[in-house]
Amino acid sequence: MKTILVIGAGRSSSVLINYLLAHAQQEQWKVRVGDMDIKLAQQKTNEHPFADAFYFNIEDAQQREQEISGADVVISMLPAFMHGAVAKDCVRLKKHLVTASYVSEEMKALHEEAIRNDVLLLNEIGLDPGIDHMSAMEIIYKIEAQGGELTAFYSYCGGLVAPESNTNPWGYKFSWNPRNVILAGQGTAQYIEYGKLRYLPYSRLFASHATITVKDHGEFDAYANRDSLSYRSVYGIENIPTMLRGTLRYPGYCKAWHLLVTIGLTDDSFKIQHANKLTYAEFVESLLPSGEGSLQKRIAALCHIREDDQAMQKLLWTGLLGNDLIPLEHASPAQIVQELLERKWKLEAADKDMVVMHHIFEYSINDKKQTLRSSLVVIGKNQTETAMAATVGLPAAIAVRLLLNNKISKRGVVVPVHKELYEPILKELKEHQITFVEEIEF
Amino acid sequence: MKTILVIGAGRSSSVLINYLLAHAQQEQWKVRVGDMDIKLAQQKTNEHPFADAFYFNIEDAQQREQEISGADVVISMLPAFMHGAVAKDCVRLKKHLVTASYVSEEMKALHEEAIRNDVLLLNEIGLDPGIDHMSAMEIIYKIEAQGGELTAFYSYCGGLVAPESNTNPWGYKFSWNPRNVILAGQGTAQYIEYGKLRYLPYSRLFASHATITVKDHGEFDAYANRDSLSYRSVYGIENIPTMLRGTLRYPGYCKAWHLLVTIGLTDDSFKIQHANKLTYAEFVESLLPSGEGSLQKRIAALCHIREDDQAMQKLLWTGLLGNDLIPLEHASPAQIVQELLERKWKLEAADKDMVVMHHIFEYSINDKKQTLRSSLVVIGKNQTETAMAATVGLPAAIAVRLLLNNKISKRGVVVPVHKELYEPILKELKEHQITFVEEIEF
Repeated sequence: MKTILVIGAGRSSSVLINYLLAHAQQEQWKVRVGDMDIKLAQQKTNEHPFADAFYFNIEDAQQREQEISGADVVISMLPAFMHGAVAKDCVRLKKHLVTASYVSEEMKALHEEAIRNDVLLLNEIGLDPGIDHMSAMEIIYKIEAQGGELTAFYSYCGGLVAPESNTNPWGYKFSWNPRNVILAGQGTAQYIEYGKLRYLPYSRLFASHATITVKDHGEFDAYANRDSLSYRSVYGIENIPTMLRGTLRYPGYCKAWHLLVTIGLTDDSFKIQHANKLTYAEFVESLLPSGEGSLQKRIAALCHIREDDQAMQKLLWTGLLGNDLIPLEHASPAQIVQELLERKWKLEAADKDMVVMHHIFEYSINDKKQTLRSSLVVIGKNQTETAMAATVGLPAAIAVRLLLNNKISKRGVVVPVHKELYEPILKELKEHQITFVEEIEF
Repeated sequence: MKTILVIGAGRSSSVLINYLLAHAQQEQWKVRVGDMDIKLAQQKTNEHPFADAFYFNIEDAQQREQEISGADVVISMLPAFMHGAVAKDCVRLKKHLVTASYVSEEMKALHEEAIRNDVLLLNEIGLDPGIDHMSAMEIIYKIEAQGGELTAFYSYCGGLVAPESNTNPWGYKFSWNPRNVILAGQGTAQYIEYGKLRYLPYSRLFASHATITVKDHGEFDAYANRDSLSYRSVYGIENIPTMLRGTLRYPGYCKAWHLLVTIGLTDDSFKIQHANKLTYAEFVESLLPSGEGSLQKRIAALCHIREDDQAMQKLLWTGLLGNDLIPLEHASPAQIVQELLERKWKLEAADKDMVVMHHIFEYSINDKKQTLRSSLVVIGKNQTETAMAATVGLPAAIAVRLLLNNKISKRGVVVPVHKELYEPILKELKEHQITFVEEIEF
C-alpha cells in the first residue's frame, strides 16, 4: 500500500480528497488527512475505510517529520507561505510534494537538492495557476507544431458565481479567499503589448479593464494580473510581442471597484483607531476630500462619474454609505470592507459558483493571421463540490495518481508545462466535465 | 576633559561640528568625529587641536563599544534606521545619546532601561523634528498660561532653495536626502479637522495641497505629512479639534508633482528591467494608458489638466518627456526619477538654501477668537553652512552643551517638548539668527 498525506482539509480540499478516496481501494492507497481542525478532516474523510483523519499542527516539527516520513507523497493545501517547512522536510526525507500554489523563492531554492534526492516538488497544479498553464501549453505546442508564430497571448480566469446564483448588483460572491479579493491588484501590473513593456499602477488598474466575450456566456470585465511577464520564459515564448494575464469579473464590477480604490477603501497600510465608534458613512467620509453636499455627490466628483452611475448603485448596495456602526475596533480600511463584504457577498447554501477561463492566441501560419479562443466554464455542483474546489483539486489529485504509477519522470521544482503532465491530466479532466471549447477565426 | 563622540560627518553635521569646536577650548571638550569616509571627518574637523577625525564603521561592534565607552555623550547623525545598535550600546555603557531623528519603536523600547541606567536618549532635536516641537511647545505653554483654549494647530516646514537661487520652474533643489523627497508622502496622511479624523491617500495627497502665506515671504504650497495625530499626546493637546502637520514647497510644485504620482513615476515597488535601453519618453509612455497623440496630450487627459498647464511645463523641463537614454540598468521608476532630478535639482556651489517653518494656532481666550502665526525663515550662508545644516545641527549641539553642564535632568527616551530643553535652546538659537516672528490676529 502507498500512503498519501493531505495537509489541510479546508474548502478547496473536498474534491481532491473525494478523488483520492474514490481511487483508494483500486490503487491500494491509504489517504491520511491532517488539519488543525480535526472535525474538518473527519468531515472530508467521512469514515472511509482507506482514510485516516487526524489533528495535524504544521508548526510541530516532530509531528511533521513523522507524518512525512510515513508518506509516499505529500499534498499541501495550506496557504502558500506555509509550504516552506513542508518542502524542506520532503526533500530531506525524499518524499514527493504536490501543491496548487505559486512557486516561491524559498521553493525555487530547493530545486537542485530535490533533483539530487530524486524528489518531485510539483507546484502550480491547481486552477490558476494550474489548468491555465496546462491548457496554454497544449495549444502553444499545437500552434508551433503547425509552424505557426505566436504574436499575442491573452489568458484570463475568474472564480465567479453561477448565473442562476447571481443575485446581487456586483455579480460577485466569495468562492475564494476574501482577503485576496479585497487586496487584488495592489502593486503595479506588468505586461507586454506590441513589443512594449507596459506598467499599470493600482490606482488605474480597475479603470483600465477590458471587455472579454466568452462564447455562449457573454461579456466579462477583465483586469490585468500583477505579473504577466515571467510566464514568457516558463512557457518558452520569450519573444512574444503581446502577453497579458488577467482576472475576470461580471460586467460593471471593475468600474465600481475602482470607486473603492480611488476613495482609499482598499488601503491596508494603516489602522483606523476606534472604527467601532464610526458609521460606514462616517468612515467613507474620513477618506473623502472635504466638500459640500451628499457623500454620493462628493464621490461622483472625486471619481469623475455621474451620481446615478451604475457603479454608484453598486457602492450604495454594499451599505458603505449607510449609517450602521462598524463592528471592528481597530482595522484598516481593507479589513473594514472585507468584514462587510463577507456578509454581503456570502455564497449561500443553495448558491453555485462558476469558474471561467479564457485564452486568446493570435498567430500567423504562412503569413495568414489566425485567432484561437479557448474557453472553460465550470459550474459548481453544490456548496462543497464547488467549481473552484473541483478545478483546484482535481489537477493535483490526478497528478498524484500519475506520480504513484510512475508516470512522471521530472524531478526538482516543476510546474505543469511539460507534456508528460498536461497531456494525461487535461485528458482525465475531460472525464470530469472540465473541458475547453475552442474556436478558430481566420 | 569631556569627550563628545560624533558619528557621521555628512552634510548635516557641518554646523553641529563647528559649534562643538568653537566651544571646545572653553568647555574643555575633546570632539571625536568618526565616519566611514575618513576624508569627510577630516574636512569637518580641519586639524582643530581639540578634535580627532577617524575611520568609524558602525557595523564593527568592537570599535563601536570601544568608542562609546570612551565618550561622555554620543551624537549620532546617521540615518535613523542605524541608531538602534548605537542606542543599545549607549544604554548598556551608561552614555547619553543625542539624535535628530524620529523616535523609532526600537528606540522607544529602551526607555525604562535608560532611566534605570541614568541615561538620556534625546531624539528629534533637529529642525523637523526638533525646532518645530520646541517652538510649538513654547507657544502652547504661553496660550495655556493665558487661559486660552486651542482649537486648531497647523505646523508646516520646508527645506527649500533661497529666492535668489531659485532658478528653475519647480522652485526646488535638493538640500536634503533626495530619496526622501522622491518618496515623500507614500502611505496615507492622517490628521484631524474640526474633530473628525481625516485620511488622505497618496494618490490624492499632492492634489490636495493648501496655500500658506508667510509674512514677507509670500505664498507656499503645503501638503500633509503622514502622521499629524501622534503629536497630539506628545504636545499634551490630546483633545484639539484640528491638527495638521505639513511640508512646504514653492507655489506650483505640488500640482506638478501630482502628475508624477498619477503617472506612476514615483513608484518604488518594482524594477524596470533594461531601463538603459529606454529613453525617458519611452519610460513615461510605458506607464501611460494606451492612446493616440503626443505624450503631453495623453498626460493632460490622464491628469485632467490642459496641455499648456504650468504643471506640464515643469514636467517638460525635467526632461522626462525627452529622448535621452536612461543611465540606469534595472531601476524602479522612483530611482530613475531620482537619478535624473539629482542632476536637474542640484544645489550649485553659489546657491543658498532656505528653511521655512510656519505655525498657525487658533484659540479662544474668554470666548474671543485669536490666531497666532509664528514663522521662521533661515537662509543658508553657503554650500557648507546651509540653513538645513544650521537648523538641524545647532539644536543638537546646544543640547549637548546643556547636558554636559548638567542642565538637563530628564532621562530615558526624550523629545524636546520640556521647558528645561526648549527654553534655553530656543534662546540660544536666536543668537544664531534662528528666530521666529509672531503675528496675532484678533
